[in-house]
Amino acid sequence: MARDIDDLPRLDANYMALTPLWFLERAATVHPTRTAVVHGSVHYTWEQTYQRCRRLASALSRRNIGAGSTVAIIAPNVPALYEAHFGVPMAGAVLNTVNIRLNASTIAFLLGHSKSAILMVDQEFFSLAENALKILAENDNHYNPPLLIVISDKSCRPESLKDALGKGAIEYDKFLESGDPEFAWKPPEDEWQSIALGYTSGTTASPKGVRFDILIVLLPSIAEVEGHSQGSLFGHCQPRCDSLLRCTCGAQHNSKCSKRRDYPSLTPRRPCEYSWCCPTPSLLFAMSEKGFHVTHTYGLSETYGPSTVCAWKPEWDLLPPIEQARLRARQGVRYTGLEGLDVVDPKTMKPVPADGEAMGEIVMRGNLVMKGYLKNPEANKEAFANGWFHSGDLAVKHPDGYIEIKDRNKDIIISGGENISSLEVENVLYTHPAVYEVSVVAREDELWGESPCAFVTLKPGTEKSNEGRLAEDIIKFCRSKMPAYWVPKSVVFGPLPKTATGKIQKHVLRAKAREMGPVKKSKL
Amino acid sequence: MARDIDDLPRLDANYMALTPLWFLERAATVHPTRTAVVHGSVHYTWEQTYQRCRRLASALSRRNIGAGSTVAIIAPNVPALYEAHFGVPMAGAVLNTVNIRLNASTIAFLLGHSKSAILMVDQEFFSLAENALKILAENDNHYNPPLLIVISDKSCRPESLKDALGKGAIEYDKFLESGDPEFAWKPPEDEWQSIALGYTSGTTASPKGVRFDILIVLLPSIAEVEGHSQGSLFGHCQPRCDSLLRCTCGAQHNSKCSKRRDYPSLTPRRPCEYSWCCPTPSLLFAMSEKGFHVTHTYGLSETYGPSTVCAWKPEWDLLPPIEQARLRARQGVRYTGLEGLDVVDPKTMKPVPADGEAMGEIVMRGNLVMKGYLKNPEANKEAFANGWFHSGDLAVKHPDGYIEIKDRNKDIIISGGENISSLEVENVLYTHPAVYEVSVVAREDELWGESPCAFVTLKPGTEKSNEGRLAEDIIKFCRSKMPAYWVPKSVVFGPLPKTATGKIQKHVLRAKAREMGPVKKSKL
Repeated sequence: MARDIDDLPRLDANYMALTPLWFLERAATVHPTRTAVVHGSVHYTWEQTYQRCRRLASALSRRNIGAGSTVAIIAPNVPALYEAHFGVPMAGAVLNTVNIRLNASTIAFLLGHSKSAILMVDQEFFSLAENALKILAENDNHYNPPLLIVISDKSCRPESLKDALGKGAIEYDKFLESGDPEFAWKPPEDEWQSIALGYTSGTTASPKGVRFDILIVLLPSIAEVEGHSQGSLFGHCQPRCDSLLRCTCGAQHNSKCSKRRDYPSLTPRRPCEYSWCCPTPSLLFAMSEKGFHVTHTYGLSETYGPSTVCAWKPEWDLLPPIEQARLRARQGVRYTGLEGLDVVDPKTMKPVPADGEAMGEIVMRGNLVMKGYLKNPEANKEAFANGWFHSGDLAVKHPDGYIEIKDRNKDIIISGGENISSLEVENVLYTHPAVYEVSVVAREDELWGESPCAFVTLKPGTEKSNEGRLAEDIIKFCRSKMPAYWVPKSVVFGPLPKTATGKIQKHVLRAKAREMGPVKKSKL
Repeated sequence: MARDIDDLPRLDANYMALTPLWFLERAATVHPTRTAVVHGSVHYTWEQTYQRCRRLASALSRRNIGAGSTVAIIAPNVPALYEAHFGVPMAGAVLNTVNIRLNASTIAFLLGHSKSAILMVDQEFFSLAENALKILAENDNHYNPPLLIVISDKSCRPESLKDALGKGAIEYDKFLESGDPEFAWKPPEDEWQSIALGYTSGTTASPKGVRFDILIVLLPSIAEVEGHSQGSLFGHCQPRCDSLLRCTCGAQHNSKCSKRRDYPSLTPRRPCEYSWCCPTPSLLFAMSEKGFHVTHTYGLSETYGPSTVCAWKPEWDLLPPIEQARLRARQGVRYTGLEGLDVVDPKTMKPVPADGEAMGEIVMRGNLVMKGYLKNPEANKEAFANGWFHSGDLAVKHPDGYIEIKDRNKDIIISGGENISSLEVENVLYTHPAVYEVSVVAREDELWGESPCAFVTLKPGTEKSNEGRLAEDIIKFCRSKMPAYWVPKSVVFGPLPKTATGKIQKHVLRAKAREMGPVKKSKL
């Protein structure tokens, strides 16, 4: 066997570390005059956008921001946010996009943990950034404050910009002017190089800094690059700060998105992607009734974005809509680009049988999995145990290979030795006509160890005085729809606590349930 | 600056060498029962196809075919050809697809040069393979003959199969039976691993073996994987051996494809891709008149496939059709996935000005460029000089950044110190109503050093007796359409010599022109 065939060396001419940065350069070359970014009355072409990104990269480089540096940005969906996604990696640095809904102390934690050397901040959020930096300075004497760059915006009060500039921040456009529009950025030498850092929203403990290498960013983007090269538009037709438009998929939706609101970008009969875990069949049914063609995807910050997609089969078009919603509510099959997905016993790593009943943990592996958590070896050890990334989500595998999430690992309720999926109880509760939002957690139970406790927000217009009757009605409703041991023993009304990204904080509800004390035997 | 962020190690969970092999596994998982391959009355689902590929990989492994081995196949577009594209790399080996139009001595050269350990051959081509092996045995005493696997096909005469089996070949389906349908193939450890070997058709000298690494195969396929994952069909609705269907793009077309023929796969009003270098504006105009929506791409064996695409701009829709054809005949901009493309002075590597006039060589670089030629260090040195791959094609760059081929390096005609693009002369000749095919080469000229000599095939139905008058008419036609020094001094009628893939062999015509002797001064 000739092995000499593989001795051919890698050359500049035939090998290059992959990077998505070429896509922008190509768009600027092929479609220089086509509109790339629209924000209010501001329009930039692809050529202008590419030049602005190169100016940013050049200006950063001139301030010694490069490999190993982190640049943080707190901004809504303004052009600077888009430009930072290219300009920062073109300088070789890592981009840390900070969620604009976080509070000052969380932002202080993020900035300190990431050691961000530059902080770009939209003028609307300047005082928030200021407060965060103040907290940081108080807590850490060694902390080197970042260079502040303020992004001006005509739609904000001019005073906030004046205030920021008075405090020594550099205006973003001035910063760009200090950079070279023809800056010869260098492609990365290795795809393992970090390109971005994102913090988990932390439904439980402190946010974890998720590191992304280049490949994880590139692979999903390749599938969409055709659209880009045709000169697609980065639209901004929504009011600032609207969470729905800020992410292409719907991860930042909250369940209100099924209600009647104006979503110009989600025109009925146009396809949309939904990745808010986990949509109930009844929500999907309601959306399809309103004419939305939903593609259901599921993923985590740690897997960059979608890890699964509920790939639709044409033969399902013939099924009744409610059955379609049930099929569509499943998380589905592995996303294109993810090499490995399975549902396993997390201790033995043995796959569960594809019977739609046996529960296991969803695990992933491959190039769509994060590089790791920043400065958190314990979390990394746990997350990457046994050669797979552990999602912490519990699911079943159906006979057709599609997986369906039953619960978060820690959200499972163990009652009389039986596992109860809080998610399945919630799915039933969502079909009750008075229920607007619901979250079910374990409450201590004298007889059963644990039993389900339902926290419910009622639909607007429901009389407060009716709550007593409604709690009974809801329990009765549950009895007719689920096994007896699933039925919540307690129903609590009120608004649900949520993270900045709209996720319900079950740990807060569990604390509330603890405060309520155990369900007494007599109550049975 | 914190550099610790990049110290996170590559793990099984978050890093894997990229490979297109997962796409088949995913199609089998997501769409197991959907039709994947159709050949006559044979239908295979994705699950069956995946199993057959794993059987092939397993059967090869059991015969010690793996990393470093080469498996050759001589077959038209039958299921086995498709299966070999997955099954051979699943065994870790390299696939060498042999053009079915080659003659026995060329195939002998390929098999010997590649040291193919297995030869899969369609029963239709068994005697061709036999002849090739006979030539090889005669020329090389040390040659170890490959294991012969014959692919049976009900649409062929049963005698040819019987003959092959009688001579010791194994039937393909029998060979598959010896493999495990659940074979646990291993993904490659490195994307630089070779996956395929293809020989250039050799318009000039001996065929060169072009080695492809995994990335070069993966990148173009990612853009199309969405279609695949939706269970696209690998159709075979054409008669066997129809060159048009054998490649997805039109690289194997010859210029006859603009004539009235039945192309069920190229239904008017459906998009088609055209990469036969170089379509004339008049051909593209004729195709658009017939209703074909042509996307013009250009590439070489050495760049796997398309390196450029004439990306269409919506504003061009408003132009007159003949102007559209002129724009579409340009080779265009770099293909998505190719990192570098330019037109340069091949000595200084300085890009030519984008003025549509200055000529330079097209050079490419990046992951769509081949690994190199097999066992041909001289050719590699020349092809990869100065950090770029040298295409040997001469082009101009237009002010809009689109490139346009003017000629092959060696096809340029130098007349009185002026460069003449043989391609441009041909483009004009193609607009003459009697010209069916034309090729222009340099002929020695006593006064000018060289002058253009046109070899012409006339349209069917043209009277032979008219040739004398037609030659004069063609020269007169040229005088009215091009600079005087471009006008061919000689016009020769007859069929044009072509390679197995339908490319006109200019070196044969140059030899003919040499035989004709120089153009005499008196002739002027």
